[in-house]
Amino acid sequence: MADPSENDSSLSEKKGTPPIARVSAKVAHAVKRRRSQVRDINQLAKAILDGDKTALSQGITLLESTATKHQPQAKQLLEACLPHANRSLRIGITGVPGVGKSTFIEQFGMLLVSLGKKVAVLAVDPTSSISHGSILGDKTRMEALVKEPNAFIRPSASGDSLGGVARKTREAIILCEAAGFDTLLIETVGVGQSETAVHSMTDFFLLLKLAGAGDELQGIKRGIMEMADAIVINKADGENIRAAKLAKTEFNRALHLYPPKASGWSPKTLTCSALKNENIDAVWHAVEDYFELTRANGYFEEKRNEQNKFWLLQTIESRLKREFYEHPSVKSEFEKQLALLEAGETTPFQAAETLLRLRNSS
Amino acid sequence: MADPSENDSSLSEKKGTPPIARVSAKVAHAVKRRRSQVRDINQLAKAILDGDKTALSQGITLLESTATKHQPQAKQLLEACLPHANRSLRIGITGVPGVGKSTFIEQFGMLLVSLGKKVAVLAVDPTSSISHGSILGDKTRMEALVKEPNAFIRPSASGDSLGGVARKTREAIILCEAAGFDTLLIETVGVGQSETAVHSMTDFFLLLKLAGAGDELQGIKRGIMEMADAIVINKADGENIRAAKLAKTEFNRALHLYPPKASGWSPKTLTCSALKNENIDAVWHAVEDYFELTRANGYFEEKRNEQNKFWLLQTIESRLKREFYEHPSVKSEFEKQLALLEAGETTPFQAAETLLRLRNSS
Repeated sequence: MADPSENDSSLSEKKGTPPIARVSAKVAHAVKRRRSQVRDINQLAKAILDGDKTALSQGITLLESTATKHQPQAKQLLEACLPHANRSLRIGITGVPGVGKSTFIEQFGMLLVSLGKKVAVLAVDPTSSISHGSILGDKTRMEALVKEPNAFIRPSASGDSLGGVARKTREAIILCEAAGFDTLLIETVGVGQSETAVHSMTDFFLLLKLAGAGDELQGIKRGIMEMADAIVINKADGENIRAAKLAKTEFNRALHLYPPKASGWSPKTLTCSALKNENIDAVWHAVEDYFELTRANGYFEEKRNEQNKFWLLQTIESRLKREFYEHPSVKSEFEKQLALLEAGETTPFQAAETLLRLRNSS
Repeated sequence: MADPSENDSSLSEKKGTPPIARVSAKVAHAVKRRRSQVRDINQLAKAILDGDKTALSQGITLLESTATKHQPQAKQLLEACLPHANRSLRIGITGVPGVGKSTFIEQFGMLLVSLGKKVAVLAVDPTSSISHGSILGDKTRMEALVKEPNAFIRPSASGDSLGGVARKTREAIILCEAAGFDTLLIETVGVGQSETAVHSMTDFFLLLKLAGAGDELQGIKRGIMEMADAIVINKADGENIRAAKLAKTEFNRALHLYPPKASGWSPKTLTCSALKNENIDAVWHAVEDYFELTRANGYFEEKRNEQNKFWLLQTIESRLKREFYEHPSVKSEFEKQLALLEAGETTPFQAAETLLRLRNSS
């Protein structure tokens, strides 16, 4: 299916050409473009598999494109990369703004690079499309890491829904892995459900915190504690050290309130100072311990399979819902049924029947 | 739509009758039955609105019937009762087996009856269909309440899914309210997601607990604390009083860790002894305070509207999913796509596309 807007512009540009010549020129152009696309995508895939970071960037841009004409190309690229994916450790990192995420990721990434790892940093930020500035957009925040040959930093995809952004990030993971990146850091700001999305695409989930004024748990987002495999209290330097240690104790206590994890892993609490580059290696050791444990007990594979299944069902179900609620007959009746419901003149079940019948009858 | 099994039996019974006579007899019978149904349902509805508990029981049994032939009758009954519903206070009560739920509900119900309330007790127990014994099935557990003219006790509906059980309970609420019951106690054992289901159909959610050996929060089910409007520590009698008070303090502290509720209500912790009938009135005062607050600030209405909308969407979406996953082409391909996914030969998104295309093409 061609992009309608593209058709429009190509027609208006060629106003002087007679209609038939215009059509045959278009056909010839399309055939040529299709052939060159196939070659281009194969070349692009090959360059990505060779570890070419520019090609990787272009590939991710292609995946992120919303143009209909790019869909088959994106599919072809994914298919070429897929056999070479699934090989990295995927680490999710979250924390509120001001917690020092960029500095932490810079230091953590530099440590990994020094250990011979190839590190890719991606982000899930559902607000990036609104603010036009993504959390990783400002690459200067990671001055050292961005210059490393074995590091790749990519700002968050933009999109009109978290689902869209998350899907694109998940596909970008495949490309990064195909390009040989073995350690992936997936950052999120934790807006709305973005932590859940990142948790569902990573192996290890790291929560960055600051030491506060006692009562550390107050205001912590619902469900985050359960997801965390490690809580790292950043800015544990200077006068902050004591408060950070107290926070560590309190978080540790709180973690004990939760039932044991299916992974067999007991979540760790740590303190570090990204600014002073202190104790970053301890964080990495915890991550290593986690991977050792979960690879040995089979949880690593199991979780990845579950995540894949989750994304399959998620994709299907969001499409089913979209199709239903955007069905013209349903759309025009939906508000009416809601009004009847508010007025107590129907039940939720009767209203549902009415709407489902409308969809089936047209 | 007629029940096919019923048709079969009526045909086989009348093998001796000539075909045409058979058909006209069937038509006459159907017409007669339809007329008598309409009259019967109107009569049933009238009896329910008059507060007849036997009619209420029969009405709920009709709602719970899975026979296709009962569906239009159930619908008719609901429509007749609907204008008289939505008038009760709906209180959800949960707690693990052994916490003393039945004794608590008995005493709480007796208190309400003594205050001039009309009390209906319903239950959501997704296990009742498996164990063939529902949590409220053994009515002798509420010996006094069951004899009260102004009390009505109904065991849990059975069903093959929580969704089914919950739907039936939600419809039973409508009938109970139409019958003039002004205070509804909806009990659950808290298996699987049943607490969430009960929370989504009640105004006030009460969690019953026992004092344990310190560390009260250990093992508490995920999300339950957030839902509770009151935590009541039962069996606070004799030697247990001290432990119950300690538990109260710990729960109170834990409740403070959660963000403020949209209702504006601060969840309460209380102790009581259902066995000794002590402090049951304090629980009721807390419930009264809640209703006073939420009726004044508009949250009561708001929550009910949200609950109705939730059930509307829930019903639609579970139907959409069922239709999709039970589609013959999808069903036969689904396991194959899962296997490809496990083998890393497809992505969740490609597998979803394949399955969605199958559904659309047949």
